[in-house]
Amino acid sequence: MENKEEDVRVGANKYTERQPIGTAAQTQDKDYKEPPPATLFEPGELASWSFYRAGIAEFMATFLFLYITILTVMGVSKSDSKCSTVGIQGIAWAFGGMIFALVYCTAGISGGHINPAVTFGLFLARKLSLTRAVYYMVMQCLGAICGAGVVKGFGKTLYQTKGGGANVVAPGYTKGDGLGAEIVGTFVLVYTVFSATDAKRSARDSHVPILAPLPIGFAVFLVHLATIPITGTGINPARSLGAAIIFNKKHAWDDHWIFWVGPFIGAALAAIYHQLVIRAIPFKSKS
Amino acid sequence: MENKEEDVRVGANKYTERQPIGTAAQTQDKDYKEPPPATLFEPGELASWSFYRAGIAEFMATFLFLYITILTVMGVSKSDSKCSTVGIQGIAWAFGGMIFALVYCTAGISGGHINPAVTFGLFLARKLSLTRAVYYMVMQCLGAICGAGVVKGFGKTLYQTKGGGANVVAPGYTKGDGLGAEIVGTFVLVYTVFSATDAKRSARDSHVPILAPLPIGFAVFLVHLATIPITGTGINPARSLGAAIIFNKKHAWDDHWIFWVGPFIGAALAAIYHQLVIRAIPFKSKS
Amino acid sequence: MENKEEDVRVGANKYTERQPIGTAAQTQDKDYKEPPPATLFEPGELASWSFYRAGIAEFMATFLFLYITILTVMGVSKSDSKCSTVGIQGIAWAFGGMIFALVYCTAGISGGHINPAVTFGLFLARKLSLTRAVYYMVMQCLGAICGAGVVKGFGKTLYQTKGGGANVVAPGYTKGDGLGAEIVGTFVLVYTVFSATDAKRSARDSHVPILAPLPIGFAVFLVHLATIPITGTGINPARSLGAAIIFNKKHAWDDHWIFWVGPFIGAALAAIYHQLVIRAIPFKSKS
Amino acid sequence: MENKEEDVRVGANKYTERQPIGTAAQTQDKDYKEPPPATLFEPGELASWSFYRAGIAEFMATFLFLYITILTVMGVSKSDSKCSTVGIQGIAWAFGGMIFALVYCTAGISGGHINPAVTFGLFLARKLSLTRAVYYMVMQCLGAICGAGVVKGFGKTLYQTKGGGANVVAPGYTKGDGLGAEIVGTFVLVYTVFSATDAKRSARDSHVPILAPLPIGFAVFLVHLATIPITGTGINPARSLGAAIIFNKKHAWDDHWIFWVGPFIGAALAAIYHQLVIRAIPFKSKS
Repeated sequence: MENKEEDVRVGANKYTERQPIGTAAQTQDKDYKEPPPATLFEPGELASWSFYRAGIAEFMATFLFLYITILTVMGVSKSDSKCSTVGIQGIAWAFGGMIFALVYCTAGISGGHINPAVTFGLFLARKLSLTRAVYYMVMQCLGAICGAGVVKGFGKTLYQTKGGGANVVAPGYTKGDGLGAEIVGTFVLVYTVFSATDAKRSARDSHVPILAPLPIGFAVFLVHLATIPITGTGINPARSLGAAIIFNKKHAWDDHWIFWVGPFIGAALAAIYHQLVIRAIPFKSKS
Repeated sequence: MENKEEDVRVGANKYTERQPIGTAAQTQDKDYKEPPPATLFEPGELASWSFYRAGIAEFMATFLFLYITILTVMGVSKSDSKCSTVGIQGIAWAFGGMIFALVYCTAGISGGHINPAVTFGLFLARKLSLTRAVYYMVMQCLGAICGAGVVKGFGKTLYQTKGGGANVVAPGYTKGDGLGAEIVGTFVLVYTVFSATDAKRSARDSHVPILAPLPIGFAVFLVHLATIPITGTGINPARSLGAAIIFNKKHAWDDHWIFWVGPFIGAALAAIYHQLVIRAIPFKSKS
Repeated sequence: MENKEEDVRVGANKYTERQPIGTAAQTQDKDYKEPPPATLFEPGELASWSFYRAGIAEFMATFLFLYITILTVMGVSKSDSKCSTVGIQGIAWAFGGMIFALVYCTAGISGGHINPAVTFGLFLARKLSLTRAVYYMVMQCLGAICGAGVVKGFGKTLYQTKGGGANVVAPGYTKGDGLGAEIVGTFVLVYTVFSATDAKRSARDSHVPILAPLPIGFAVFLVHLATIPITGTGINPARSLGAAIIFNKKHAWDDHWIFWVGPFIGAALAAIYHQLVIRAIPFKSKS
Repeated sequence: MENKEEDVRVGANKYTERQPIGTAAQTQDKDYKEPPPATLFEPGELASWSFYRAGIAEFMATFLFLYITILTVMGVSKSDSKCSTVGIQGIAWAFGGMIFALVYCTAGISGGHINPAVTFGLFLARKLSLTRAVYYMVMQCLGAICGAGVVKGFGKTLYQTKGGGANVVAPGYTKGDGLGAEIVGTFVLVYTVFSATDAKRSARDSHVPILAPLPIGFAVFLVHLATIPITGTGINPARSLGAAIIFNKKHAWDDHWIFWVGPFIGAALAAIYHQLVIRAIPFKSKS
């Protein structure tokens, strides 16, 4: 009966040695215990220091994220010749690299979300309470606003004339294009987050928990490589909100809904894909 | 007798401490069990949910792979000055980085092939059944077609006038050059995959299973650095097919056979090299 | 009572499986012993070979750091077209990559500081004695001077006319901007160092000690992406001093205080943040 | 007495928790056994299949190394505008990235040298026999010649007119500059290799063996960032020889000695530094 929990020891999976890199979803070899879903309201949380510390860590991480990334964007925008700057690729590295470093630093403190879309996706999968999800999102947005604000302090005129790192749909693309780019981009990110934080995979494949912050950072880097020409790449509503509030011009606000609706749809799709397809065990016989 | 299985404890290998980084092929120190080769048809597979889930994961991974990479290619192609884009190097990062992230995410679900040439190489080494190999290839090709299709949706005219990311042999090179570049390039990739998924090495060198997705992604990145000027770099028949079907112009189809024949030859050579040279134990005395 | 040491097993943290990536600050699952703070003067240190070896290692690491990075800067500065060099992004990689490689190499010998601001931050957290901190800083500065000196040896005229890699506040920015950029930039670096060397996190999250040198290197890389246009990026007083002494021109010396005061303030803030917020356990009940 | 082997448990090292990242050289906590130095001639080696396999692996790795890197160099050289290529930074990635991937793949087979200077350094430290060292160097040089030869096959005229990836001292630099750049550059590489393969560090710091191929690859990348403008960067006599033989022009041969003498001096200095400083335990009391 124990063996019948999952019908996975067939074909390539009959021998773990035959399965290239990892066997997370297929075997029952190591101990692994599925936690119950988080309740909407955890009574103890609001009286816990670790809860507030987690929020402070999210604030600080999102602050540093916006500070470094928007400052990099400004450095590139300022110069007439992109060749004498770190270039568009350098901007993509700034976004992805910061997520790598910050997930590494805050993973054990708050879970290392640094992004309301990630928080939303994990909430849908019932990995944290509603209280915590809302609290994280508020702290992330506050951190982002402060981070962008500090960058504006380095040169107000430059910031306002060069776009302030705000996300807008680029000329030549429709709002539908922008929305689609945000949905699929956030899907890539949140799908990677789910893969990296899957307790079942972590228990069995040593590369899953150890490398975790790296593919998450790379996911952000890669989506930027692809969609900077379309929307400047949001896939993080706090990042988009922070830049929009500090920039505060009409055309940024006009497109702003895209950078909330898109990421939240993408995160929801990733949560559904992970929970219903990757983690599903539909054929198990319980008899 | 146990000690005579492999004549490896001589010279530099007599002491594992003397052997720089890893001792996989030389020692008998840790438990390691060679699995029997996969049969051509595994009866249980077709009735197993994990088999279908693996195919879905391959479809989704190849879809996301083409989406991000071809979109990056379009972003670079669109601009007259490469300096104001992520550049050709950014394209190479997109291909390699996506393979890193996707192998990380799907390794435990399907084995993380995302490439018919990888599937073919592993099939030749009898690491998966024929049924599974064919099924994976079909799902990879379907995913690639959908991924390229979505990119075309962001701008049909741009896609058609800028080459659509399709692989063709560049002017100044012969078809033989292109075929050779594909063969050696795929050899680099599939050789890395074999090295990363060698159960013997994984059992003994901690860096082998833990880093695994990273060198595989780097192999893809490096081959792109070298052969984008020659063929645009295929080394993945699904990627070439997806772009060719959505682009659908005569000169792309004329060269298309190169991006199937080349990768399959390269993968076969890598399988032969790994099985006959790296894994061979010809001098062992069984007496 | 043991369980009440920290009020962390509530909400998302009740089950480690529910907490994405790592649980360092929240659980009591593994053994972990807090060391007592270092005394200001350790009597045995000055008679210990390992103490002197650590200083030599710091000297050598800082020497190689300045050599590779300033040589890269010179290679980029020399060329009229940044396109035919490794570019500004390449400079950022040189700084960050060297820190990654050198922290990897010297971590077990001296702790791998290679930066007086890192030494200062760790000293404030009482992780090393005052004797050792001062000794490290002196060796780092000597190494940096030698490293920059060797680069000057490759071409004195070029070195002097192209700025010699010295840190100055760029035209268009105030000294306050430069100071602020140094403070926040060093905060990012030293915060990452604290996160990577937190014994509590290391004991519980396998990715913390294993990846450690990588996010530290990335932190340096990312701060360079953002602040090269403002100050050339110091965040390391030894690096700034070495280049300034070998370059030795008035305008470099005029701004030089910024590259000591800024990094030291940033390091102190990171130490305070880590010790008072991240490591604080204020709500624990000792009854 | 056991505790007195090394006088390291003082100051920062009294508590491993206080020592940031790793404690390799300082503690006696874990089992570690120093192997005896390799003899000059190991009688069993020449009759061992693993010995020949190791040579084949070195040949293949150096072949692929030259193939990918010189092809990347040609792709950049061919284009008038470096902006429409992967650029000089892309060349540096090709060299460093290939070393990362190849060390990962061959570490357990041959030790993953792929470079006569590395073999020479490890031989000086008596980590392999003279027989094996000479055999490796011959195979590396043969592999390099074949790799460069294949690249020439893609376009003979282009190869000959664009320098063929051969190492020469650039105009504006003296031969002494070139020699110095090769010495320090190889020192950085071989020092990293020694740090990564130190059995004492590996036994105690989990990040040392697991990350090992990554800092080695980065060391190569970083030296290329710094010294491509001076010599094109050799730091690998096989790589320089392979390109020189296939290119075969007088000015490449004139400077060729620099790319053997420099790397061998650098490797020797790194071996001396590691063995006499980093690994020295001079103050231990044996009474």
